[in-house]
Amino acid sequence: MKSHGTWIAGAIVALALGTAAAACSNKAERAARTQASESLKASSSVRELMKQRGLVEADVEAALRTYVPGGKQDDYLIFASGGQSGQVLVIGVPSMRLLKVIAVFSPEPWQGYAYGGESDKILAGGNQNGRAITWADVHHPNLSEANGEYDGKFLFVNDKANARVAVIDLTDFATKQIVANPLVASDHGGAFVDQNSRYVIETSQYPAPLGREYAPISEYKTRYRGLAMFWRFDRQQGRIDPAQSFAIELPPYTQDLADAGKLVSDGWAFINSFNTEMAVGGTLEGKPPIESGASQNDMDYLHVINWRRAEDLVNAGRAPVVHGVRVLPLAVAAEEGVLTLIGEPKSPHGCDVTPDGTAIVVGGKLDTHATIYDFAKIKSLIDSKRYQGKDDYGVPILPFKDAIRGQAELGLGPLHTVFDDRGNAYTSLFIESKVAKWSVKEMKVLEKLSVHYNIGHILSAEGDTVSPDGKYVVAMNKMSLDRFTGVGPLFPQNFQLVDIAGQRMRLLYDMPIGIGEPHYSQMIKTDKLKPIKAYKPGENPYTGQRDPNAVTGGQERILRNGNQVEVFMTAVRSHFTPDRIELEEGDQVTLHITNLEQADDQTHGFTINMYNVNLSLEPGKHENVKFTADMPGVYPMYCTEFCSALHLEMAGYMLVKPKAKGQP
Amino acid sequence: MKSHGTWIAGAIVALALGTAAAACSNKAERAARTQASESLKASSSVRELMKQRGLVEADVEAALRTYVPGGKQDDYLIFASGGQSGQVLVIGVPSMRLLKVIAVFSPEPWQGYAYGGESDKILAGGNQNGRAITWADVHHPNLSEANGEYDGKFLFVNDKANARVAVIDLTDFATKQIVANPLVASDHGGAFVDQNSRYVIETSQYPAPLGREYAPISEYKTRYRGLAMFWRFDRQQGRIDPAQSFAIELPPYTQDLADAGKLVSDGWAFINSFNTEMAVGGTLEGKPPIESGASQNDMDYLHVINWRRAEDLVNAGRAPVVHGVRVLPLAVAAEEGVLTLIGEPKSPHGCDVTPDGTAIVVGGKLDTHATIYDFAKIKSLIDSKRYQGKDDYGVPILPFKDAIRGQAELGLGPLHTVFDDRGNAYTSLFIESKVAKWSVKEMKVLEKLSVHYNIGHILSAEGDTVSPDGKYVVAMNKMSLDRFTGVGPLFPQNFQLVDIAGQRMRLLYDMPIGIGEPHYSQMIKTDKLKPIKAYKPGENPYTGQRDPNAVTGGQERILRNGNQVEVFMTAVRSHFTPDRIELEEGDQVTLHITNLEQADDQTHGFTINMYNVNLSLEPGKHENVKFTADMPGVYPMYCTEFCSALHLEMAGYMLVKPKAKGQP
Repeated sequence: MKSHGTWIAGAIVALALGTAAAACSNKAERAARTQASESLKASSSVRELMKQRGLVEADVEAALRTYVPGGKQDDYLIFASGGQSGQVLVIGVPSMRLLKVIAVFSPEPWQGYAYGGESDKILAGGNQNGRAITWADVHHPNLSEANGEYDGKFLFVNDKANARVAVIDLTDFATKQIVANPLVASDHGGAFVDQNSRYVIETSQYPAPLGREYAPISEYKTRYRGLAMFWRFDRQQGRIDPAQSFAIELPPYTQDLADAGKLVSDGWAFINSFNTEMAVGGTLEGKPPIESGASQNDMDYLHVINWRRAEDLVNAGRAPVVHGVRVLPLAVAAEEGVLTLIGEPKSPHGCDVTPDGTAIVVGGKLDTHATIYDFAKIKSLIDSKRYQGKDDYGVPILPFKDAIRGQAELGLGPLHTVFDDRGNAYTSLFIESKVAKWSVKEMKVLEKLSVHYNIGHILSAEGDTVSPDGKYVVAMNKMSLDRFTGVGPLFPQNFQLVDIAGQRMRLLYDMPIGIGEPHYSQMIKTDKLKPIKAYKPGENPYTGQRDPNAVTGGQERILRNGNQVEVFMTAVRSHFTPDRIELEEGDQVTLHITNLEQADDQTHGFTINMYNVNLSLEPGKHENVKFTADMPGVYPMYCTEFCSALHLEMAGYMLVKPKAKGQP
Repeated sequence: MKSHGTWIAGAIVALALGTAAAACSNKAERAARTQASESLKASSSVRELMKQRGLVEADVEAALRTYVPGGKQDDYLIFASGGQSGQVLVIGVPSMRLLKVIAVFSPEPWQGYAYGGESDKILAGGNQNGRAITWADVHHPNLSEANGEYDGKFLFVNDKANARVAVIDLTDFATKQIVANPLVASDHGGAFVDQNSRYVIETSQYPAPLGREYAPISEYKTRYRGLAMFWRFDRQQGRIDPAQSFAIELPPYTQDLADAGKLVSDGWAFINSFNTEMAVGGTLEGKPPIESGASQNDMDYLHVINWRRAEDLVNAGRAPVVHGVRVLPLAVAAEEGVLTLIGEPKSPHGCDVTPDGTAIVVGGKLDTHATIYDFAKIKSLIDSKRYQGKDDYGVPILPFKDAIRGQAELGLGPLHTVFDDRGNAYTSLFIESKVAKWSVKEMKVLEKLSVHYNIGHILSAEGDTVSPDGKYVVAMNKMSLDRFTGVGPLFPQNFQLVDIAGQRMRLLYDMPIGIGEPHYSQMIKTDKLKPIKAYKPGENPYTGQRDPNAVTGGQERILRNGNQVEVFMTAVRSHFTPDRIELEEGDQVTLHITNLEQADDQTHGFTINMYNVNLSLEPGKHENVKFTADMPGVYPMYCTEFCSALHLEMAGYMLVKPKAKGQP
């Protein structure tokens, strides 16, 4: 297709000179353009708007390729990790509009997430060491897959900071489960699913003694370990089943990113790593920081895991239970061919299996190449036990040169790689601030596109499936510098939408991310999602069933048994029944609230002033709230979601009568 | 200008037939268009993109009027209340991109807000009854003003749910103060500033006994009260000074929205109200809900407050101190002409002073009119004590007909009104889902625009100043229904950008709001804001000074005194010094961390695994963190903001050695 510089000129020529456009000389083109732009002044035209707003032709094309009128659907949805926000961002493509922030690891009052309702229990599921953790460093969302295709049913995300994994249900876009890894201190290579989402894979990052017991840093090599956790996902229940899950003990290298095999490589998983030097820093003592200590070796290790073999061994009783998890010991994994290693050039990053499952692409932060590992070669080396040796932990090492298909010279700081439908790969170059488009077959760069700035992750449409769409790539830039209006010293990140359908990549849109620093994201076709618009009457979203305490109109009541008070309440435009709750100081209160609405978008909120309670009651939803009425006084309760013209009147009072003096 | 239907056609004609465009007949136009669109197929043109993407001409115009290329500034910034999210949203106009979510009342880990650093104290400033409240229902942001113009220095927001007000500094877009109102249970009419931001005005919503003491609902009329709080803002300190603040006791009507006078009406404040019936519901007992109980009277009351007179009386010692606040008693306010009332037609809502300060516009939820109150008339009625009587609390009531300029018939459910620079008002019609544009002088509707759907608040460019810009209006729609791709039963809200510069209003853009339900917002010219890009080296953002414990390179150290451990740490690409902290179980730890960077966008994060600590260390920033090392074990600490190619290596360990058995 035409380059940006000429397409509108082309259009004008076409208009001015009719079908002769193609044939017209530059001179004629210039003449036509002048004539055209003269005449254009007469009407509020594209050209005039361009002048008014200082848009160039590429801007006009970009605007028209991304604008989605109200009432029209976006073609794709991005599920982006919210990074340190602890949440997940849902973004429409090509409009790049933020459609929702899904509360996952951090409390979020609009959604009523962990503000007094039953979602408190979901968040508490992620407690570590028996303590509440109210944030996360969300890194890698993965959509559930069936036969290697996104099925639009579930989303899994990991918390790097505190080693946890969450399950989000895409029927109501709500978090249903958080599981805490009891063995490791942090994870990074997660949450990755195999091609049928049998397992959600979570691999550790910073080594620590399993179970996070204390061991001095001097015992790093002997007592610190890495881990690959295989969380078993029960699709019927829509939950992870810890009892059916298992782990594989790994050496104390810093395991980094992971990916699951697909098609021919299904049943396998791959983890890159750095700091095989096992450097532990010591900057205050004048020792080199980890950044240099970890950059000494020419090679780190790609970890190749045969998880189906591991599963057999675990089921055969070879995995002792540690802190409630069946852990396959490192020695067993090494002996039984579950774990093998292959060299990776300097400070590797990224670990991405090609759509056909035949290769694994690994970048090198301090290298200029991406290395393409060949699964067939790896498999035959393992089958024939052709090792070049073993590491200090007895793990077999495969010969690098015999395991790779080759290396592609891409540029400075290659990190992550995604794919299209035409055999091309797109790799983020952090240091160069570019996207490198290259042919997987030729292992040669076809094109480079500048992005703004310091691209970390990259994603593509249906990119992690066996059949990527090849329509869009998004550059997830860590810095935005001069790209947006200033909003203080904490800058937004910059998602840049790139059209990859044509011969050349075209930058379409800069989207600021002003909440959290996303890491990986995935993009799914909108029509694969079937979200509900209302819950079944009285449904408890955490069970998917009608709540045993669901309330129907006319059945509202307040039951008191000693200091136990149960309130059965309904919400409907524009009042609560009851709208007054009279309590004694110290009463143990349970509210059962059902939203009787079924109409789309007819959500009510519910708050009790000063009690740090706020619920979102979508149509049909039922919530249960427990608290102690330990503050005497008068507390308004009201609907926090603007529901009708008389929304402000949707209010009432909770009255807490103080104990009489001397009363216990 | 031309209507949407013809402007592109016009352009094509202009292009195809040169300057003869204007004169061409419809037939010639059709012919030209056909010829044009034939030839257009040859090139990737506007017309072709329209066909490809199903865009109509209005869409093309809207796209080109809203698209802001990367590297270009938005013309305006919207500061939108985040509703129940507890935060403030910053949105660029015309691109309608969310540039940042400012953490205010809810903890937010990306910004390191209330996750272990000194911002914990800011949030704790909003404690009520000595308890932490970790969310808010943010309703009305107000930008600081000088002489009735936004000065771009500060933003004030209120928490309706828990009666609090926050101060945000627009040099670093960070919350600096939260003050809790000790007297009332909720507020709604806030945060509104006078034309020089001498006071931040906060008025109560749901009546309760002052100080929230207990009183049975039967004593509603005698013991429940409303309140108008005047928080004194110290511009030099950039903080509210509670000691210099005062309040005015109000009758137990449900005070609703408020606005401060300007120019001729400076020194005055106006508050509308509903439920002058003082209905208290009782739905469980079969009594009418408040929504009907509060809709019996034909008239509620506009509250007219002479705050400068109130200030004099307070300074003259007429205001006894209640819960630490100087409160001017209702009787005194009524006697001394501080408070007067005027009737307001059925279920009033909205209370908006015109840019020239001569009139106050109040809508009526169950009325079809907006009432325009005339300040000069009000003033002369008060000066001449021409009352039609007094309410049950002895407050003088002015004659409605003599106090108003007139009423404008607008349509169903008029709520809020904003203004342009040409004497026009724009009122949101919730029930009709329309924006009514009307002439303030003529008090007649000029045009109505359908919006999607159920518009609540509305805002305009520089709309609350003495000189609105008249460029844009944003319809803040409570429901979005079919406007966006489905993301579950909790729908996003819909901000619709409307171009009001032309003869007719033009809908340009639908922006989904997927975090919180915004109430009011304000829009300020971008060039009025002067945000910083870095803090001064070692600056503590909460004092604005270099922190006494700020650390410079080479001065890092760990000091131990018994079980008191102080760590002086620096962060710079890509390591912390120290990168290892060895502790004993039970140590009381204080970390002093300085980010040594000064380059734009060179933020580091800092987290300690499992300790629920996460900091955002923008360039130059210093933070102090206190905690008890009460969990023995090995805890990685790392940078949570992707800062360099070796960001993952910017890590270390905190080791907590368990107490020996029997050790205390």
